[in-house]
Amino acid sequence: MAVLDVRPIFFIIGYLLLVLAGAMLVPMLADLAADNEDWQVFAVSSALTLFFSVLLILTNRQTGVVLTLRQTFVLTSLAWIVVCLFSSLPFMLSSLRLGFADGFFEAMSGLTTTGSTVIIGLSELPPGILLWRSLLQWLGGIGIVGMGIVILPFLRVGGMQLFRSESSDKSDKVVPRAADLALAFGWIYLGMTVACAILLGLSGMGTFDAICHAMTAVSTGGFSTQDASIGYWQQPAVHWVLIVFMLLGSLPFVRYISLVRGETTPLLRDSQVRLFLLFILAVSLALAVYLGVTTDTPAMESLRLATFNVVSVISTTGYASADYSTWGPPAVALFFVLLFTGGCTGSTTGGVKMLRYEILWLALRTQMTRLFSPRRVMPLSYNGKPVDADVIISVMSFLALYLGITFLFSILVAMTGLDLVTSVTGVAQALGNVGPGLGPVIGPAGNFRPLEDEAKWLLSLAMLLGRLELFTLLVMLSPSFWRT
Amino acid sequence: MAVLDVRPIFFIIGYLLLVLAGAMLVPMLADLAADNEDWQVFAVSSALTLFFSVLLILTNRQTGVVLTLRQTFVLTSLAWIVVCLFSSLPFMLSSLRLGFADGFFEAMSGLTTTGSTVIIGLSELPPGILLWRSLLQWLGGIGIVGMGIVILPFLRVGGMQLFRSESSDKSDKVVPRAADLALAFGWIYLGMTVACAILLGLSGMGTFDAICHAMTAVSTGGFSTQDASIGYWQQPAVHWVLIVFMLLGSLPFVRYISLVRGETTPLLRDSQVRLFLLFILAVSLALAVYLGVTTDTPAMESLRLATFNVVSVISTTGYASADYSTWGPPAVALFFVLLFTGGCTGSTTGGVKMLRYEILWLALRTQMTRLFSPRRVMPLSYNGKPVDADVIISVMSFLALYLGITFLFSILVAMTGLDLVTSVTGVAQALGNVGPGLGPVIGPAGNFRPLEDEAKWLLSLAMLLGRLELFTLLVMLSPSFWRT
Repeated sequence: MAVLDVRPIFFIIGYLLLVLAGAMLVPMLADLAADNEDWQVFAVSSALTLFFSVLLILTNRQTGVVLTLRQTFVLTSLAWIVVCLFSSLPFMLSSLRLGFADGFFEAMSGLTTTGSTVIIGLSELPPGILLWRSLLQWLGGIGIVGMGIVILPFLRVGGMQLFRSESSDKSDKVVPRAADLALAFGWIYLGMTVACAILLGLSGMGTFDAICHAMTAVSTGGFSTQDASIGYWQQPAVHWVLIVFMLLGSLPFVRYISLVRGETTPLLRDSQVRLFLLFILAVSLALAVYLGVTTDTPAMESLRLATFNVVSVISTTGYASADYSTWGPPAVALFFVLLFTGGCTGSTTGGVKMLRYEILWLALRTQMTRLFSPRRVMPLSYNGKPVDADVIISVMSFLALYLGITFLFSILVAMTGLDLVTSVTGVAQALGNVGPGLGPVIGPAGNFRPLEDEAKWLLSLAMLLGRLELFTLLVMLSPSFWRT
Repeated sequence: MAVLDVRPIFFIIGYLLLVLAGAMLVPMLADLAADNEDWQVFAVSSALTLFFSVLLILTNRQTGVVLTLRQTFVLTSLAWIVVCLFSSLPFMLSSLRLGFADGFFEAMSGLTTTGSTVIIGLSELPPGILLWRSLLQWLGGIGIVGMGIVILPFLRVGGMQLFRSESSDKSDKVVPRAADLALAFGWIYLGMTVACAILLGLSGMGTFDAICHAMTAVSTGGFSTQDASIGYWQQPAVHWVLIVFMLLGSLPFVRYISLVRGETTPLLRDSQVRLFLLFILAVSLALAVYLGVTTDTPAMESLRLATFNVVSVISTTGYASADYSTWGPPAVALFFVLLFTGGCTGSTTGGVKMLRYEILWLALRTQMTRLFSPRRVMPLSYNGKPVDADVIISVMSFLALYLGITFLFSILVAMTGLDLVTSVTGVAQALGNVGPGLGPVIGPAGNFRPLEDEAKWLLSLAMLLGRLELFTLLVMLSPSFWRT
């Protein structure tokens, strides 16, 4: 095969930067309205981004972009990195004056909808930068869903080939159907965000905070406008509204598109959705009972505290309504394990995700039965579709790689001087795009600022790896990727 | 199929108890020679065990025992539990007066060659009980190798079907070839133990200690006769001798049998052996350099400290020559990850083991390449044998289950009030049959005595699960196991 033709890749990235340059005008207007000087920062960032955008588009202009498999891998990975670089400009140029490692970390945490932050004193920040953080997560959410529906099934990454027939071409070239699907999805996403903002406003949150949190809830991002995260707001209604929208952001968005198009495939007929909701219910109830028994918290408050933080971690949002790391050893161990869960595929959540656990469970059960009934034939199916050995190996490879990377990165992060719990949970939450880890430094009441720059770079890389479902980025490390 | 015929199972367990009753005479003689009253405890325990042994043999007498698949699963699991129960008698009846949870824990830790202990003040114990602990690990080692060579390949557990053609029948009935292979293996094992004891004696260890440690080194068990474990002995030669014999105990014993039989299959042609030794070398050197750089330990001592403790944990022996949990965050993170490694299959080591990591690596590499070259056909082979999808799924299922059980048990252990690090590393070390965990309680300088009884039962179960390669025990939880 010939040398990789990068022109269509640069062309598409050019368009993505165009969107980003436009998005930067929103916080600019907010700062202008608030009479804050930082509006100039967004204006400059936008202009810079626009300049490179136009440069890329003009120098790589083409009609009817058709991407090969290899080009799609490169585009997907490169796009996230380039967009992240330009997104970090406002963090570095504004009154925050974040260094490169901090700025890149914050932008990566935003775009990948992780929600870890290096900024302390959020409540004193001008509206522009707060809006920018929320907007990054909101835009990131669009990118993630689009990638999950269109690109990953085509790339056959980590079992995603299961969704190939449903939403992608069977040919070997990916014709970007993003524009097509993104429109339907875009309206739903926007509608959800507006609904969330209105309900948060009605629950007693100020308008600006409501808009910011609506954007970071439906994208399961988790950036807040307060250092204490959602714990700052005492109104139970605020918490319940956010629980609902974190859950909505964790379900497969294709189902919403089907619903809107009038197709009668109820959400609950999707076995991934059933597993997700049942799991949330079981874990939340168990934790609520535990909280009720071990503390003198009233029943309803226990239920709210448990449900909010469980949903926040499983959906990989990462808000905190309380410092659950103080709830005792069983709760801490539970939240540690929850760092490895995630929502449904095709949603904005990160992590391993329910689909993979479900396929794993089916495969394990079959394995087990075949051990004592070797002759029995047991074909696997998921949502009525056959699951062959290729999908099973693909899913299990994903899991194994996920844990291997967690181990490797934990050692690397520990080399920057961080203790075992901080290292392991820091990596696990980054890879799962959750937000907070555990322990005194990066726990739900902590902040990532005290970390060494090396640790921030490692965690930024882990966030990207997790977001790209590992393989999308890692295939490019293979020398034969560039040879074939 | 008919109801499970338990008679051949009880018959074989009867013979195992006969061996155990005989073994109990060894510490009895030691205590008699040392003029210690505990000799009566061993006499009573031996008599009790003998009584049940004869009872089982006589009531279930049969000629030409042939086991079905299901009977083999039940026998393997039940044998470990019953032998463990009788082995715990001396711990409960002797001057130690351990409770049931403690006694069972110590016996299980012995037989599974884990090496965790609940006994404090080892140096003041009579020789009988010390010898009993070492003997349990030595006998456990025989059981493990026998199981790994003969039974597990037949049961097709966790990828072990790879070794089916090599050492087991292809028919559906297992004709115990244990006696056959055990004889060859027994002599090698005994020879290794004697050699180790002599070399330890020459290195400056007392005769009794040398015998005890020889038995717990070749079985990669890790029980010591001192609370400070091997750190008690300052002679470098003692440490190097133990390093060599821990390594010898971690290699596939079938290779030794081949070597003795004159078959010229050099150990190093086995790719599992190569991976194991290279991994040990790389990790030891890296840690030695780290120790040399971060502390002012002389080079040779750094090398010895690093190699000893790395070999001890990877081989799942669990001796400690120093408290490596004080070596700083990177070392702690490294030892955390090493809890999940293990030696070669068909050895006395526990854990995931090198074979599985190797197959996983091969499968991951193929996965990766197929992502961008979907049409390429890439058959996998291991040591020249084809590895089909069945083996890959089997290996990956093992890994997934291994980590799932680690997570589940960690939460359960944390419910007894233990912190996150103690819970997670306690379970990981038990499942891997390592010995020490990390953290102040059960770290290399710690002891398992302070744990709640519930935690000890959970860890005992984890040791058994790990030793039986998970599936052997877990299949019996499936209702259809008992129906078919």
